[in-house]
Amino acid sequence: MAQDATGAHTGNIKNLGIDTVATTSDTTLNKVISAVNTIGNADGHNMIATNIMWTLIAGFLVMFMQAGFAMVETGFTQKKNVAHTMAMNFLVYGLGMFGFWVCGFAFMFGGGLNASTLGGAPDVIPHEYIVHMFGHDFGIIGSVGFFLNSKVYDVGVFTLFLFQMVFMDTTATIPTGSMAERWSMKSFIIYGLFISMFVYPIFGNWVWGGGWLSQLGINFKLGHGDVDFAGSSVVHMVGGVAALAGAICIGPRIGKYGKDGTVNTIPGHNIPMAIIGTFILAFGWFGFNPGSTLAGQDFRIGIVAVNTMMAGTAGTLAALLYMYAKGQKPDPGMLCNGMLAGLVAITAPCAFVNSISAVIIGAIAGLLVIFAYNFVDRKLKIDDPVGAFAVHGVNGAWGVISLGLFADGSYGDGWNGVSGTVKGLFYGDAGQLWAQLIGVIVCFVFVFVVMYAWFKLSNKIFPLRVKAEDEIAGLDIPEMGVHGYVD
Amino acid sequence: MAQDATGAHTGNIKNLGIDTVATTSDTTLNKVISAVNTIGNADGHNMIATNIMWTLIAGFLVMFMQAGFAMVETGFTQKKNVAHTMAMNFLVYGLGMFGFWVCGFAFMFGGGLNASTLGGAPDVIPHEYIVHMFGHDFGIIGSVGFFLNSKVYDVGVFTLFLFQMVFMDTTATIPTGSMAERWSMKSFIIYGLFISMFVYPIFGNWVWGGGWLSQLGINFKLGHGDVDFAGSSVVHMVGGVAALAGAICIGPRIGKYGKDGTVNTIPGHNIPMAIIGTFILAFGWFGFNPGSTLAGQDFRIGIVAVNTMMAGTAGTLAALLYMYAKGQKPDPGMLCNGMLAGLVAITAPCAFVNSISAVIIGAIAGLLVIFAYNFVDRKLKIDDPVGAFAVHGVNGAWGVISLGLFADGSYGDGWNGVSGTVKGLFYGDAGQLWAQLIGVIVCFVFVFVVMYAWFKLSNKIFPLRVKAEDEIAGLDIPEMGVHGYVD
Amino acid sequence: MAQDATGAHTGNIKNLGIDTVATTSDTTLNKVISAVNTIGNADGHNMIATNIMWTLIAGFLVMFMQAGFAMVETGFTQKKNVAHTMAMNFLVYGLGMFGFWVCGFAFMFGGGLNASTLGGAPDVIPHEYIVHMFGHDFGIIGSVGFFLNSKVYDVGVFTLFLFQMVFMDTTATIPTGSMAERWSMKSFIIYGLFISMFVYPIFGNWVWGGGWLSQLGINFKLGHGDVDFAGSSVVHMVGGVAALAGAICIGPRIGKYGKDGTVNTIPGHNIPMAIIGTFILAFGWFGFNPGSTLAGQDFRIGIVAVNTMMAGTAGTLAALLYMYAKGQKPDPGMLCNGMLAGLVAITAPCAFVNSISAVIIGAIAGLLVIFAYNFVDRKLKIDDPVGAFAVHGVNGAWGVISLGLFADGSYGDGWNGVSGTVKGLFYGDAGQLWAQLIGVIVCFVFVFVVMYAWFKLSNKIFPLRVKAEDEIAGLDIPEMGVHGYVD
Repeated sequence: MAQDATGAHTGNIKNLGIDTVATTSDTTLNKVISAVNTIGNADGHNMIATNIMWTLIAGFLVMFMQAGFAMVETGFTQKKNVAHTMAMNFLVYGLGMFGFWVCGFAFMFGGGLNASTLGGAPDVIPHEYIVHMFGHDFGIIGSVGFFLNSKVYDVGVFTLFLFQMVFMDTTATIPTGSMAERWSMKSFIIYGLFISMFVYPIFGNWVWGGGWLSQLGINFKLGHGDVDFAGSSVVHMVGGVAALAGAICIGPRIGKYGKDGTVNTIPGHNIPMAIIGTFILAFGWFGFNPGSTLAGQDFRIGIVAVNTMMAGTAGTLAALLYMYAKGQKPDPGMLCNGMLAGLVAITAPCAFVNSISAVIIGAIAGLLVIFAYNFVDRKLKIDDPVGAFAVHGVNGAWGVISLGLFADGSYGDGWNGVSGTVKGLFYGDAGQLWAQLIGVIVCFVFVFVVMYAWFKLSNKIFPLRVKAEDEIAGLDIPEMGVHGYVD
Repeated sequence: MAQDATGAHTGNIKNLGIDTVATTSDTTLNKVISAVNTIGNADGHNMIATNIMWTLIAGFLVMFMQAGFAMVETGFTQKKNVAHTMAMNFLVYGLGMFGFWVCGFAFMFGGGLNASTLGGAPDVIPHEYIVHMFGHDFGIIGSVGFFLNSKVYDVGVFTLFLFQMVFMDTTATIPTGSMAERWSMKSFIIYGLFISMFVYPIFGNWVWGGGWLSQLGINFKLGHGDVDFAGSSVVHMVGGVAALAGAICIGPRIGKYGKDGTVNTIPGHNIPMAIIGTFILAFGWFGFNPGSTLAGQDFRIGIVAVNTMMAGTAGTLAALLYMYAKGQKPDPGMLCNGMLAGLVAITAPCAFVNSISAVIIGAIAGLLVIFAYNFVDRKLKIDDPVGAFAVHGVNGAWGVISLGLFADGSYGDGWNGVSGTVKGLFYGDAGQLWAQLIGVIVCFVFVFVVMYAWFKLSNKIFPLRVKAEDEIAGLDIPEMGVHGYVD
Repeated sequence: MAQDATGAHTGNIKNLGIDTVATTSDTTLNKVISAVNTIGNADGHNMIATNIMWTLIAGFLVMFMQAGFAMVETGFTQKKNVAHTMAMNFLVYGLGMFGFWVCGFAFMFGGGLNASTLGGAPDVIPHEYIVHMFGHDFGIIGSVGFFLNSKVYDVGVFTLFLFQMVFMDTTATIPTGSMAERWSMKSFIIYGLFISMFVYPIFGNWVWGGGWLSQLGINFKLGHGDVDFAGSSVVHMVGGVAALAGAICIGPRIGKYGKDGTVNTIPGHNIPMAIIGTFILAFGWFGFNPGSTLAGQDFRIGIVAVNTMMAGTAGTLAALLYMYAKGQKPDPGMLCNGMLAGLVAITAPCAFVNSISAVIIGAIAGLLVIFAYNFVDRKLKIDDPVGAFAVHGVNGAWGVISLGLFADGSYGDGWNGVSGTVKGLFYGDAGQLWAQLIGVIVCFVFVFVVMYAWFKLSNKIFPLRVKAEDEIAGLDIPEMGVHGYVD
């Protein structure tokens, strides 16, 4: 790409894969050639404009998901803590972005992110572009792009940064659900910086930044290596596993589990708020998944969008049917979690499967979330108020695995540097499934160990948990200084 | 369009209406020709990319309207039923999409929707494309595309499917307003499948799928046949008439009408929720109407967007002025309904009229909704808690008719296979108005009869109405098992 | 641009800066030339399509901000007035649009907005286009385009109109915050028409319509004249200063200031509502700032989006750190205002600065809003319930000034007709800072004087303030006729 001194690069005829046509000695023909070159330059510019527009608009939709998380978590928790739960979801946006800007982006994508490399890279910011930068070394962490400094002052990089920043924020906000109603604000604040600066970027580097998990195909002939189109693992499972570690470290809310082994339900205070939040998340997911092509020029966007929609639908209906089949009433919390589970699961495979598979994947997710929620809540007795681990952790894992089963070979030629399209076990490539399983196991172990250690250590400096009397009275006044609702 | 084995089609030079340029014996010229062909292919690809992006993004906005409907209906009804009202609006999204995916889309658009037909169709998914598929037979119902199976595995079809699916959902959700606070969940669930699988698609086929109403121009010289740009009838009137049939069949809420003939007002419990819902609907309408070009390449989008905005404005202000003129205070419910009425009415004519006509159409709608609401509520004594029939039914009809009056001949050349632009009565074409009137009458009769029969019949299996004691106590616990709000 | 009789103009090869290639006597070459011309026309059309799509989608996001304002203002005020506060925010959308359609747009942009001028203008609606229309006369007010009549019946103009209309609405809604809980509905209604028809458009003309402030560079060698990329002054400061004048004229709420000099806090009734509203505003700001290129072809959009995000982040975190440093709890209201202040401030300079400067500008804004709020509230004893002047007025001014400091010369070549890029004081151009300071002073004086006079005068016809007993009881029943919340 051409990059001028001001950091703005301009698409041109080279983006079409051809060079400027040389002029000749024929005056008449030269006029034609001049027009062809001008048109070709404009065409290359158009091509990049559509990609940048698509990626930015998708990123804006993803950013709005933060409002959805805030509403789902606050709606499904208690009235006495609303200002605190909302404020965590509000602050994580600022904290996470700051951390990602300082160093997270550099750690995640900065393996080869510098102006000279950019000069030879395509303009369309595909996944290959990122891999290209790294050159397939055994990538563990990047090192260029701190503070988005002048070395990476390019619109393509900025666009990628924006899109990735809002993804990171989704991860960072997930544990605010599992640790809600008892997490101290100061402990939360340092957590927000830690996960956005280190944990998310490092695992992200391994899968999306050209790192070692993405190279399992090239290096070990396991399909295309670990493939995660839009982040079932990179975003959701990282957040879900961190949420599990946090819920374990912080312990259950007072009154959740009786000494006699009883499991009490602490109902959410505002079902409409939670349902609207779920709709906002489903809306934002149309940025999350289709936007992950990073290119409006990639016509797969239509199929990705339909698969995303259908998996959410199937998750909702599977949860509904399960509850009716068990003779239960259709709990709105489980209906919402059913949809979210379907959306989380389809996030990895959305570009690689057909719509019938998407329905199957989503339906399984809708059941899985109920089983997982009940298992964590009743058997393990880990108090996760909104089911963050069941939704994002378990179904994040299921999504990555489902790609290894259902990918039908209709997309992904050359993904992660491996020729041919991506195929799962049911379409003949067992190696792809192995890569996916390795990805899931690594994600769980890495994130759980690091985050468990973090919560235990940080607890020494800023205690994780608020005082018991504050928890019982509600956190709004002791932590935020205001009442969430005033009559 | 080119369609490769993986279902991804690629725009190319043919989308510009020209063929690849043949090479010659002149080596110098061949270099130019090679560049021209490459640029032409890229240009055709760009063209389709903008259309797909536009249609998808617009579809995402329409999907978000579901949250708006949920908030408007829940805000304007009672606190004791919030979980139930919200849950109906939440579930209709999943139920409707599932039904539309199973067979609704095939019935609506599947008259000629198969891979071989697609091979010869333009890539831009215009209305003509759909008509082209049908070949102007006397279309009643389509038959290809069930489960989005491999015969229609094409990004153009998927994009159209997504856009149409969210439209269908708007129709399906409208009766949840008129039947709120007393509809049994199980009866609602089977309704959700029925309307999305059969009723919406069949009428939709007649107007948008190349069916017989769209052919009134070709076959009977009535203007361009029934023209409905973005669905005043196909979406809103179908939903509004179904809402009327449902409200009649289910009967009024307990306490709504006294035995002495008194009409009681049952106030909505949360005005802010309803107003924000209205804003979300107005926001989503910018997807609904401008998106209905199905093409960002159609520059009419700018005019459509402005007309949409101005009609909503005019509806709001007409309702405001009417209430002040009558010495009343400006009821927020009527202000919201005024805006929604203006938006519903402009939906059919938005591409065909100028902004002054849009203001007139919207202003009439803002008055019409008040008269219609009062007539239904006080004279007919049909209990429609949110005025669904007045907003969507009456103003859906008005929108279709207004096109037959105000279309100014500045758009629609060749619409429904009739040459020349679309003109209403005021611009010289009385035939167009007749076609519009036929469309309205057919819509009312078809939908009312079918839905009335459905509600009466389905009532035998799953009773429409909840038990009286549940209605009085509130539906949240008996139907959903949770309280909507917990203090 | 080509404009046909129907008002639809079509991009073509001329938009690429070249003419149709003339045919020759060589038959073979003519085939090539024919293809080149066809491709060139399509390419020019694509270029404009992306610009129109970008501007429209951005405009839709800005429109949605209206819901955000409604939620922030209602959440941060009292429960007894919710229907009234919401209804003002709802009605201002309709009122403002109507006024802007009648004459506001014509006054703002109609200096040269007519069909013949359009014929020679570029299609991409850049800022230069507007200046071009005016021809650099000493512009005070425009005069063409009332009611969007046939003279301006062009998709480029309609697209610009939509985008500018939603901007105007932001201005108009700001004083509903400072005057909340005591403003009479009728007084508010005539205000809504006045500001959208006259005040906003006239100042807007001076900066964006090619008027005299934009010509300070050409006429007086002060940099590029007053530069305000997306409206820190044109939109926010105008609204904020009007809010200040209104708050002074209407006086404080009963109970706000004690006779003994005490300053009472009247807490907002719903923190979650206000926080979600803030998220909606932050979401819409991605339309506000990046959309202000009016062109998806301008790759600066990626940098604008990132700067917007980072300034909001920095504002949030600066407010957070300040409160902790002062030993206070992190008040959610101040956290929200910190983010909004950062967003307001970056609105003028977002395209001209790097991301490190964006963080500095946002952080200063996050502190400034706290100081300004406290100064107005406690020292001046002006009751501005949501801090509208501190957020939009003070930080609008800071944003315009910050451009005069931090603009780094990487963008804006030829802005306002002055050659070279835009540079602030820190990059060597003190003249630019002077232009910015003049812009700020003119904005304050013009808007304050006009609005103060308006509020004083209009008070004679429709009293600004509701009756004291209504204010004490709550405005919902006396002004709107309904309860905002019904238990």
